[in-house]
Amino acid sequence: MSTPFPFSAIVGQDEMKRAILIAAVEPAIGGLLVLGDRGTGKSTAVRGLAALLPKMRAVQGCRYHCDPAVSSACEDCARLKSAGRLKTEELPVPVVDLPLGASEDRVLGALDLERALSQGIKVFEPGLLARAHRGFLYIDEVNLLEDHLVDLLIDVAASGENVIEREGLSVRHPARFVLVGSGNPEEGELRPQLLDRFGLSVEVKTPTDIAQRVEVVRRRDAFERDPVAFTTTWAKQDVKVRRQILQARDRLTDLAVSDAVLHRAAELCVAVGSDGLRGELTLMRAARALAALQAAPEVTLAHLREIAVPALRHRLRRNPLDDTGSGERIERAVAELWT
Amino acid sequence: MSTPFPFSAIVGQDEMKRAILIAAVEPAIGGLLVLGDRGTGKSTAVRGLAALLPKMRAVQGCRYHCDPAVSSACEDCARLKSAGRLKTEELPVPVVDLPLGASEDRVLGALDLERALSQGIKVFEPGLLARAHRGFLYIDEVNLLEDHLVDLLIDVAASGENVIEREGLSVRHPARFVLVGSGNPEEGELRPQLLDRFGLSVEVKTPTDIAQRVEVVRRRDAFERDPVAFTTTWAKQDVKVRRQILQARDRLTDLAVSDAVLHRAAELCVAVGSDGLRGELTLMRAARALAALQAAPEVTLAHLREIAVPALRHRLRRNPLDDTGSGERIERAVAELWT
Amino acid sequence: MSTPFPFSAIVGQDEMKRAILIAAVEPAIGGLLVLGDRGTGKSTAVRGLAALLPKMRAVQGCRYHCDPAVSSACEDCARLKSAGRLKTEELPVPVVDLPLGASEDRVLGALDLERALSQGIKVFEPGLLARAHRGFLYIDEVNLLEDHLVDLLIDVAASGENVIEREGLSVRHPARFVLVGSGNPEEGELRPQLLDRFGLSVEVKTPTDIAQRVEVVRRRDAFERDPVAFTTTWAKQDVKVRRQILQARDRLTDLAVSDAVLHRAAELCVAVGSDGLRGELTLMRAARALAALQAAPEVTLAHLREIAVPALRHRLRRNPLDDTGSGERIERAVAELWT
Amino acid sequence: MSTPFPFSAIVGQDEMKRAILIAAVEPAIGGLLVLGDRGTGKSTAVRGLAALLPKMRAVQGCRYHCDPAVSSACEDCARLKSAGRLKTEELPVPVVDLPLGASEDRVLGALDLERALSQGIKVFEPGLLARAHRGFLYIDEVNLLEDHLVDLLIDVAASGENVIEREGLSVRHPARFVLVGSGNPEEGELRPQLLDRFGLSVEVKTPTDIAQRVEVVRRRDAFERDPVAFTTTWAKQDVKVRRQILQARDRLTDLAVSDAVLHRAAELCVAVGSDGLRGELTLMRAARALAALQAAPEVTLAHLREIAVPALRHRLRRNPLDDTGSGERIERAVAELWT
Amino acid sequence: MSTPFPFSAIVGQDEMKRAILIAAVEPAIGGLLVLGDRGTGKSTAVRGLAALLPKMRAVQGCRYHCDPAVSSACEDCARLKSAGRLKTEELPVPVVDLPLGASEDRVLGALDLERALSQGIKVFEPGLLARAHRGFLYIDEVNLLEDHLVDLLIDVAASGENVIEREGLSVRHPARFVLVGSGNPEEGELRPQLLDRFGLSVEVKTPTDIAQRVEVVRRRDAFERDPVAFTTTWAKQDVKVRRQILQARDRLTDLAVSDAVLHRAAELCVAVGSDGLRGELTLMRAARALAALQAAPEVTLAHLREIAVPALRHRLRRNPLDDTGSGERIERAVAELWT
Amino acid sequence: MSTPFPFSAIVGQDEMKRAILIAAVEPAIGGLLVLGDRGTGKSTAVRGLAALLPKMRAVQGCRYHCDPAVSSACEDCARLKSAGRLKTEELPVPVVDLPLGASEDRVLGALDLERALSQGIKVFEPGLLARAHRGFLYIDEVNLLEDHLVDLLIDVAASGENVIEREGLSVRHPARFVLVGSGNPEEGELRPQLLDRFGLSVEVKTPTDIAQRVEVVRRRDAFERDPVAFTTTWAKQDVKVRRQILQARDRLTDLAVSDAVLHRAAELCVAVGSDGLRGELTLMRAARALAALQAAPEVTLAHLREIAVPALRHRLRRNPLDDTGSGERIERAVAELWT
Repeated sequence: MSTPFPFSAIVGQDEMKRAILIAAVEPAIGGLLVLGDRGTGKSTAVRGLAALLPKMRAVQGCRYHCDPAVSSACEDCARLKSAGRLKTEELPVPVVDLPLGASEDRVLGALDLERALSQGIKVFEPGLLARAHRGFLYIDEVNLLEDHLVDLLIDVAASGENVIEREGLSVRHPARFVLVGSGNPEEGELRPQLLDRFGLSVEVKTPTDIAQRVEVVRRRDAFERDPVAFTTTWAKQDVKVRRQILQARDRLTDLAVSDAVLHRAAELCVAVGSDGLRGELTLMRAARALAALQAAPEVTLAHLREIAVPALRHRLRRNPLDDTGSGERIERAVAELWT
Repeated sequence: MSTPFPFSAIVGQDEMKRAILIAAVEPAIGGLLVLGDRGTGKSTAVRGLAALLPKMRAVQGCRYHCDPAVSSACEDCARLKSAGRLKTEELPVPVVDLPLGASEDRVLGALDLERALSQGIKVFEPGLLARAHRGFLYIDEVNLLEDHLVDLLIDVAASGENVIEREGLSVRHPARFVLVGSGNPEEGELRPQLLDRFGLSVEVKTPTDIAQRVEVVRRRDAFERDPVAFTTTWAKQDVKVRRQILQARDRLTDLAVSDAVLHRAAELCVAVGSDGLRGELTLMRAARALAALQAAPEVTLAHLREIAVPALRHRLRRNPLDDTGSGERIERAVAELWT
Repeated sequence: MSTPFPFSAIVGQDEMKRAILIAAVEPAIGGLLVLGDRGTGKSTAVRGLAALLPKMRAVQGCRYHCDPAVSSACEDCARLKSAGRLKTEELPVPVVDLPLGASEDRVLGALDLERALSQGIKVFEPGLLARAHRGFLYIDEVNLLEDHLVDLLIDVAASGENVIEREGLSVRHPARFVLVGSGNPEEGELRPQLLDRFGLSVEVKTPTDIAQRVEVVRRRDAFERDPVAFTTTWAKQDVKVRRQILQARDRLTDLAVSDAVLHRAAELCVAVGSDGLRGELTLMRAARALAALQAAPEVTLAHLREIAVPALRHRLRRNPLDDTGSGERIERAVAELWT
Repeated sequence: MSTPFPFSAIVGQDEMKRAILIAAVEPAIGGLLVLGDRGTGKSTAVRGLAALLPKMRAVQGCRYHCDPAVSSACEDCARLKSAGRLKTEELPVPVVDLPLGASEDRVLGALDLERALSQGIKVFEPGLLARAHRGFLYIDEVNLLEDHLVDLLIDVAASGENVIEREGLSVRHPARFVLVGSGNPEEGELRPQLLDRFGLSVEVKTPTDIAQRVEVVRRRDAFERDPVAFTTTWAKQDVKVRRQILQARDRLTDLAVSDAVLHRAAELCVAVGSDGLRGELTLMRAARALAALQAAPEVTLAHLREIAVPALRHRLRRNPLDDTGSGERIERAVAELWT
Repeated sequence: MSTPFPFSAIVGQDEMKRAILIAAVEPAIGGLLVLGDRGTGKSTAVRGLAALLPKMRAVQGCRYHCDPAVSSACEDCARLKSAGRLKTEELPVPVVDLPLGASEDRVLGALDLERALSQGIKVFEPGLLARAHRGFLYIDEVNLLEDHLVDLLIDVAASGENVIEREGLSVRHPARFVLVGSGNPEEGELRPQLLDRFGLSVEVKTPTDIAQRVEVVRRRDAFERDPVAFTTTWAKQDVKVRRQILQARDRLTDLAVSDAVLHRAAELCVAVGSDGLRGELTLMRAARALAALQAAPEVTLAHLREIAVPALRHRLRRNPLDDTGSGERIERAVAELWT
Repeated sequence: MSTPFPFSAIVGQDEMKRAILIAAVEPAIGGLLVLGDRGTGKSTAVRGLAALLPKMRAVQGCRYHCDPAVSSACEDCARLKSAGRLKTEELPVPVVDLPLGASEDRVLGALDLERALSQGIKVFEPGLLARAHRGFLYIDEVNLLEDHLVDLLIDVAASGENVIEREGLSVRHPARFVLVGSGNPEEGELRPQLLDRFGLSVEVKTPTDIAQRVEVVRRRDAFERDPVAFTTTWAKQDVKVRRQILQARDRLTDLAVSDAVLHRAAELCVAVGSDGLRGELTLMRAARALAALQAAPEVTLAHLREIAVPALRHRLRRNPLDDTGSGERIERAVAELWT
């Protein structure tokens, strides 16, 4: 609706920007958790990135804007496809906000009461998860959401499918999106089990460098006073980023991860003691996406090293005898193992 | 409905009156929190100010009384505009009270049950947020409101847009208003996270000077016994204030804030340790609005200094080793840094 | 419905009777709190007073029995008035009980479900607040009521207007009444913030004088055995009280309060440390009403002195180092300041 | 429905039986609280008494079975009466049980949903309070009922009128009944404020005398094995009790209570420190009813003495320094004052 | 629906089996509480017993399958009877399970919504209590049920009548059934007041004898592998039990309990300190039923002794100074008193 | 919907795979609890197994896909059968997920609101339990489910029948399924009483062997990149497993368990102190199923030994003086008793 702040004009915050790029290249990464102070431009970055992505091709009239090129579409599209009557259109990549106070039925979708009451038939009315399909679902203050709603969202994000069993409805539809949750850990913690289900986790901080702070305030003021002029200034930089993402997506399918690299990833996960195998899977996928973004010919230890902290930081158990932060513990393990 | 007490007839309370004027000149300031004893005329000041503002020009028949001069109007207005059929009318600036016991659906707006039941169609019925658009939303005892409702209000006030996702509705409409919350901190505290989201915060106190108290009581009695006569007596003063606001709004767009001043603002925020960058942004905006009210040619350190306390007072962390009040800590930092 | 016990036949309880008379003369006093033992005739006094007041002139057919002589009437009356079609009738002064278990919608008024369901239109159905307009609203055990309901009632009593924002309704109608809350502080306290919003507060006690107790029981038994005969016996006394009230109302508009008296009132409020300026305003209004009842030519220090305790008793902060009762602290301050 | 156990066949429990008789003679006594062990025949006594009372004359077809001889009847009866079309019939005295799980709307009465839904009109459907009018309302385990429901019941019992303000209804109808609450104080206490509102309070205990216990079990077994034969055996005794009650009611209106006796009652209440004047009023009424039952020519100190404990036992404040039971404290005071 | 395990094939658990037989002979005993480990065949025994009872004769088409031989039938049967149009049929003795999650309205019965909505009339739809009439109501894990529901069930079981006062319904119908509650005291206790209202209470334990355990498992396996063959094997034994019950019921009416025996029962109750007289009544009834089962000519001390523990075990107060189990305390008292 | 990961391609996790096979052979085993770290392929194994089972024959059009070969079918099938009009079809074995947020009415089934509203008739709409009939019901994070829902599920799984008593419905239908609950004990414990009701309980752990971890990640990546190719590679292994299950089911009915083996089972249960007799029954059934899977001619002590830990692990009381894990305690008892 309103013009978003250009992605490239964001001052600093490199870890967050890299994680968003990785999620844009490889959505299977499993969502992104952005933790940190208020007022540091978390939602700005997501909105900026979505704005610079190219439009997506979708089935015309489909309530889930299904991808015509993919087999696991909704029932309606499957029918149209087999009948050979499927038309397409171009749509912007959706960024859906979960507003505070959204009811569970609007998130998941629900019975269409209007038609139920007027025509006496049960029709499913898609919710926010349907609208976010193939785009981003942004939740501000994810730590203030009720646990079971977060659970639901992560489940859907992980399975790529929204299953509704309520109000006499029994519906399932595709719902693949990059879940981006932001929050301030001081305002309420996420359960460890939820933490673990996010793919990457990054921390953002208020810059302490005065010059950088002034720069942020100056750019923000310039943008607010004349959004159009400001956006034009940064358009070239944004186009560069878009090209980088599209090329990385193309490269991704051909990039293999060698057993040696997998071995190193497993080694690190055992060393830092992350539960299950989600750590390794994320390390593999994120390293591959990073290599693709960097146009590297293969995935190397350097790529692993670069994404080790955001991939594992939120998967560590608290060690009461060792009060160094999670990030530092991972960096120490990396230093010990890989040098 | 009833005649408001004239803004200019308010005895004392200079900090509060200055903050209200700043918010009237620059609504982007982000709301106003008025803390203090009961019976000190908090709501009187808001109502008085609104009464002296000139009428606003609005789209005729629009349910949100959209501003015809602005592009981000509601869907209906956008349609009318592109069809060239938009008529306008003049309306008083709204001051909307959030009465105790208002239900969430009346605040946000909700499904129009009358039409849903009688005609079987889903129509959105605007709420108090719609009615407050372009005016003031006054909440007495904001600290007694449920946190999630305060959250909602601040979110809408910050984004200037009301997003409804419930009851099968999916509506968004403009909702730009100055949020004024008043409260007595002794009756229940606001969460620090909510505090931080208000632009300015002022404190009002019962005057201890006997003469001043007698003056307050005398004016109040005179007003109650003959409101018309009393209002006439103060009309001239009120016209002066109106002119000052209108001129300040005009000047605002041309007033730049120099990098040197921004640097000083950042310096202060770092020194007192306010989180994020909201402190700096508010300092910049409030100083600019103050300079505009004073018809100053540029924003100076003196303007920063004048609004430092109300802009930052509510953004400080409690320091258990230093029990001086927030106001004093800011004044001390100002004294150390800027002299 | 049943014959009320005559006001004049109440034995003792002078402080309570005086406060009720003051509220009957000057409703702007802001309600009356009667604290004390059960079974001391609190509701009897209110009902008795209402029974002796003359009937009131009201707009015929108006759902709020608006006063035809006042400008701030309801919308319907306003329309009738401007059309010159307003007829009037005489009605007894209402005393409305808030029964235990009354639902919020019956207190405030609500959507008329009958017409909503049968005719599909939304009509407001007035509640108890509407019925109490221009009379008395009596709440027994006000301390057992939910805080938010008490809040609501005090808000309406203070503003003289009932604002409804719920169930898709947006209505406001006049609701000026004398709120009389009774309660036993041992059964649950009112929040200090609520206390402060009542105009006057009186204490009633079970008499300890045996003769007086026997007299109370004897009169009560006589009344119950033959209400008509008993009422006739006391009719003359009641007529005297009625005349006193009517004359006091007439005198009220011409009685000024000198600055000297206001100065004394402020002095006392500062000395006892009541918050805000409600104390002074109540002292001024109650002293004026008392002077009018006594047919005094002007308001003097003696009047202030007589109503100082009921006007301020409930506005004092608890002083943990001084455990004398509030009443005594006020009397001590009066003695120190004014002699 | 089933045959009740004959009142006269109850073994022992004299205090309880006397209190029930007093309440049957003088319903204005204000209800009866029966405290004690389970399985001691509390409900049996009430049911037995009601069964032996003569039928009552009521307005034919009246939903509240109004008394044709009394003026304060319901609206319908008032209309019939003034139209001279009022017919009467004879009905047994009702004993209404408040079953566990009865909903508030069934107790008070509520909107008749059937007619509301089918005919679109709002009609009041009377509840248990209406059914109990002119009879007994029995609540087993009154201490397990929610406080606010007990409050409601006592209010109605005290005023003799049921006022409904909910669901858009505004109804009042006569509801005069003897409220009998039974309970075991070990299972949950009544609030002191509720205790105080019952007229009389008696204690029942499991007999410890073996012969008496065997007699209870033997009579109960005989009754269960052949209710008709058992009832016939005790019919003569029951007729005697009925006659005693009817004669006492007749005598009641002519029995005066002398000032000397009232003086003694007040003296006792002051001595034991019961709040308010309910104690004296109950002493007076109960002594008069007792005198009437005993066909005494006047009310004497002996009558007062006989009902002092049940009339005052539940009105005493707990004295932490004196842990003798309430009953003993009253008896001690009686002994000191009246001998 | 499925074949029940034969009652006679249950290994051990003699106390439980005896109590079930007593309840089958004398339903006035007031329900049965079975406490003990999971997996010990509690529900098996009830189901097995019901299966071997002869069919019962009931009024054809009656919603409560009323007994045509009894006077206290439902309203419909009463009408048919007086019209001489009552037909009968034979039905198996019902065993109704209270499934976990059963709603209160299904237990008690409720408004028939189907007819209310489609035909606009209010009809009562019977619930589980109606279905259990004249049979067994089995509640597994009665200690996990909400207290107020248990209260309701015991009330109905005690009075033999279900009284509904809700949703505008006012219905009563016969509901005589043997309430069998089972539970594991380790999973949550019953309130003492509820305990006391069950007639008998038995404890079951996992056998510790290996041979017995193997026998249980072997029989269970044989039954599961071929229910029909297994049931046939035990049919003869079951017929014997049926005959024993039927003969005992016949004998019951002629069996008197001598005053000497009643005296002994009272003595024991006083000695162990059970509240009220429920203990004695249960001892008398259970001893009589046991004598009838044993075809004894009269009720003797031996019968009392045999059922003393299950009749009183749950009626003892906890004695903090004596931590022997309730069962042992009763046995000790029996030994001291009766030898 | 999507291709499941082949059962045979699962790396390690032998205990879990064996338990799933046992449950597939002998569903009477009573459900399976899989405890352990996240991300270890718990749901993968269930889905993989179901995929390799042969289709099942079911009654055509039956809402519960009843087994035409079994007598205890639903009412409709019973009618069709007796009318000789029953047709059949082949369906895949269902694996039903209980999604987080599923409402109780969707689990149990509920009133079909669509038909109730449009046609005014009450029809049962089957829920997830009906859909899972004859297959698997998988609950992820069973420890996060509300206790009463878990209770319900176990009850239905144990009885093989779903009994609905709500919303005026009274339905029962067959619901035999293997309940598989997975969970992480660190995230919230199951009540001991629920634990005990699962048949088998297995623990899964993240492998600590680096090579094995790399193998898991490699297979998962290969599967995700090309599911069809990967599935083809493992098809042969899967067919082997299917044949093993089918042959084991055939053998099961002829495999007897000797008294000697039962004796040993009882001995072990007594030694480790498991409550009730569920332990023995499970040991017997699981050993028999295992023997059938291994094509053994008879059930031996070796089979008992192999399934002792998963059959009993969750049935032990916590011994505060012995903090070795449950598994070890059972193994120690096995070693002491059986060697």
